[in-house]
Amino acid sequence: MKRIAILIDGFSDLSAAKTAVSVIRYRRSEMVAVIDSAHAGQTAETVLGAGGDIPVVADLSSCPDADTLILGTAPSGGRLPSGWRATISAALRRGMTVVSGLHDRLSDDAELAALAVEFGGHIEDVRHSGCTDLATRENLRSDCLRIHAVGHDCNVGKMVVMLELEAELKRREKDAKFVATGQTGIMIAGSGISVDCVVSDFVNGAAERLVLDHQDHDILLIEGQGSLLSPMYSAVTCGLLHGCAPHGLILCYQVGRTHFRHTNVPIPPLSVFRDLYEAAMASLSPCRVIGVAVNGRDCTPEEGTLACRQIEAELNIPAVDVYRDGAGRLADAVEALRTEVLSC
Amino acid sequence: MKRIAILIDGFSDLSAAKTAVSVIRYRRSEMVAVIDSAHAGQTAETVLGAGGDIPVVADLSSCPDADTLILGTAPSGGRLPSGWRATISAALRRGMTVVSGLHDRLSDDAELAALAVEFGGHIEDVRHSGCTDLATRENLRSDCLRIHAVGHDCNVGKMVVMLELEAELKRREKDAKFVATGQTGIMIAGSGISVDCVVSDFVNGAAERLVLDHQDHDILLIEGQGSLLSPMYSAVTCGLLHGCAPHGLILCYQVGRTHFRHTNVPIPPLSVFRDLYEAAMASLSPCRVIGVAVNGRDCTPEEGTLACRQIEAELNIPAVDVYRDGAGRLADAVEALRTEVLSC
Repeated sequence: MKRIAILIDGFSDLSAAKTAVSVIRYRRSEMVAVIDSAHAGQTAETVLGAGGDIPVVADLSSCPDADTLILGTAPSGGRLPSGWRATISAALRRGMTVVSGLHDRLSDDAELAALAVEFGGHIEDVRHSGCTDLATRENLRSDCLRIHAVGHDCNVGKMVVMLELEAELKRREKDAKFVATGQTGIMIAGSGISVDCVVSDFVNGAAERLVLDHQDHDILLIEGQGSLLSPMYSAVTCGLLHGCAPHGLILCYQVGRTHFRHTNVPIPPLSVFRDLYEAAMASLSPCRVIGVAVNGRDCTPEEGTLACRQIEAELNIPAVDVYRDGAGRLADAVEALRTEVLSC
Repeated sequence: MKRIAILIDGFSDLSAAKTAVSVIRYRRSEMVAVIDSAHAGQTAETVLGAGGDIPVVADLSSCPDADTLILGTAPSGGRLPSGWRATISAALRRGMTVVSGLHDRLSDDAELAALAVEFGGHIEDVRHSGCTDLATRENLRSDCLRIHAVGHDCNVGKMVVMLELEAELKRREKDAKFVATGQTGIMIAGSGISVDCVVSDFVNGAAERLVLDHQDHDILLIEGQGSLLSPMYSAVTCGLLHGCAPHGLILCYQVGRTHFRHTNVPIPPLSVFRDLYEAAMASLSPCRVIGVAVNGRDCTPEEGTLACRQIEAELNIPAVDVYRDGAGRLADAVEALRTEVLSC
């Protein structure tokens, strides 16, 4: 058990602070504070909509019992926000562990690295795996079911869906394992490879490496990244998809998302994604979309319910909002696919 | 004009030495020697099937007039062949420029870097761009035609097709520019970004960067990499495809290639690739496959001709072997597409 302070100073809007929100939600019992000077005195629940009465404090000196500082945002491009250096330095001077998911490697920063050495602090650059494996498509265990989350865009809830699915399958006493492929997932699961930071030649290999490392479990729930049609990030998505060689896909969809994030490029209809993901797998190994996870954070409950019904009618597979409806029906679909795959 | 010696020692089979063969073919007038101890005394033509009477020599001391050493292979995974260190050291001690397309960065090697400084040599790690651009899909010039080579697998001739197409379009006095996206292409063109060595988050951005940097030309011929269904390298291919936002695709196909390179995974029919590449672009911007480049290096001329006829009948687009037939019909297809795009 750690005692975690999470830094979001200047990045408290929900879109920017998605790392913080997820870590708070899934490591709740280890959280001692949220650092955000603009909202000091409030609670995590008020500021981020998660975390209950975890206090929001102005700076690191206000949480003297914390032993771990997690950087709670990964801005587009992954650079270190300039205002954060002082807080990171202070944490290292206290001998704390600093966990970063940025592209900028804190351990490459001479000043920060020296502070860590001098004061016994630790830097964990979770985004950097150094993975240089090439995919071979060999040695995949045939009786380990591989489920992968994909989406119509990035930041639509792919990680959360897989974490909720893992929890539901474990409640059913199934041997299911969440496999993290991004910095937030790694912060939550404690292992994984941030595939978006792997050199592109090795992305497929990194995804396959994760499968090979965890296929002693019966069911792998492999976190997804980006979108196969993302103008910005499709390289990551495509390599991850092919490298993890899924039997089944959960297609994640945010109601009301009209354009790819950070662009003016319109997002095509969901059926286009279902068809494209399946076409991209079809000739390599049998794989189909078995359910849709609908993210209703930007719509009313009624709009969310309507979206689920419309998607079910169009695609003829379960469509659920795991926050509102739970992951039960998606877990049913996973179990049904496992039965089908094992009987082949 | 350089005086180039190219090192292939231990890698003289045609598949391993594809970098060397291409550099020899397209920088013929600058070549002074091929270094390959197993074939010393022969000619480049005999050993590599290209390069005419360029001598093959045993070691660097046999080509005292060379000022540039190019490493003539990029083995799978891109590591430095262990036996090459002595030759590279000798070149740097002579103050030569050493050009490497390996993932291993020669300039990160303390011993080699120190030699370069001490003796005035230069190391050019052409695979390493440090590109961290994100794609935006903004500022693309509407009257610059973007043509991109794609394929059913890696190493099927995508670069050569675009170089031959550039030469043919220039013969027709068109303002066409080959845009290199891999280490061999960069060695030939003198600029470019090796997208397979870019961190995966930035692959789409690197491809877009290349377009933005060269779109003052009327026609860009953007080198392709890998295959959208490659189990090993699809991340590179997908990011490059979306990032360069092509209007037209040249689909490259090697007759007799049955399995993805270095794998036991069978390659699906060519029509699957045509459909998948077009589907992957369809919702982003208008794009279609305008021709097939057939690589007949492993078949008889009759088999090559038959393959071209069958592909033309099935896909209803020109299919040609640019080595045997020239790039004329593909250039016609490019010119026709340019007329069509400009009239929109």
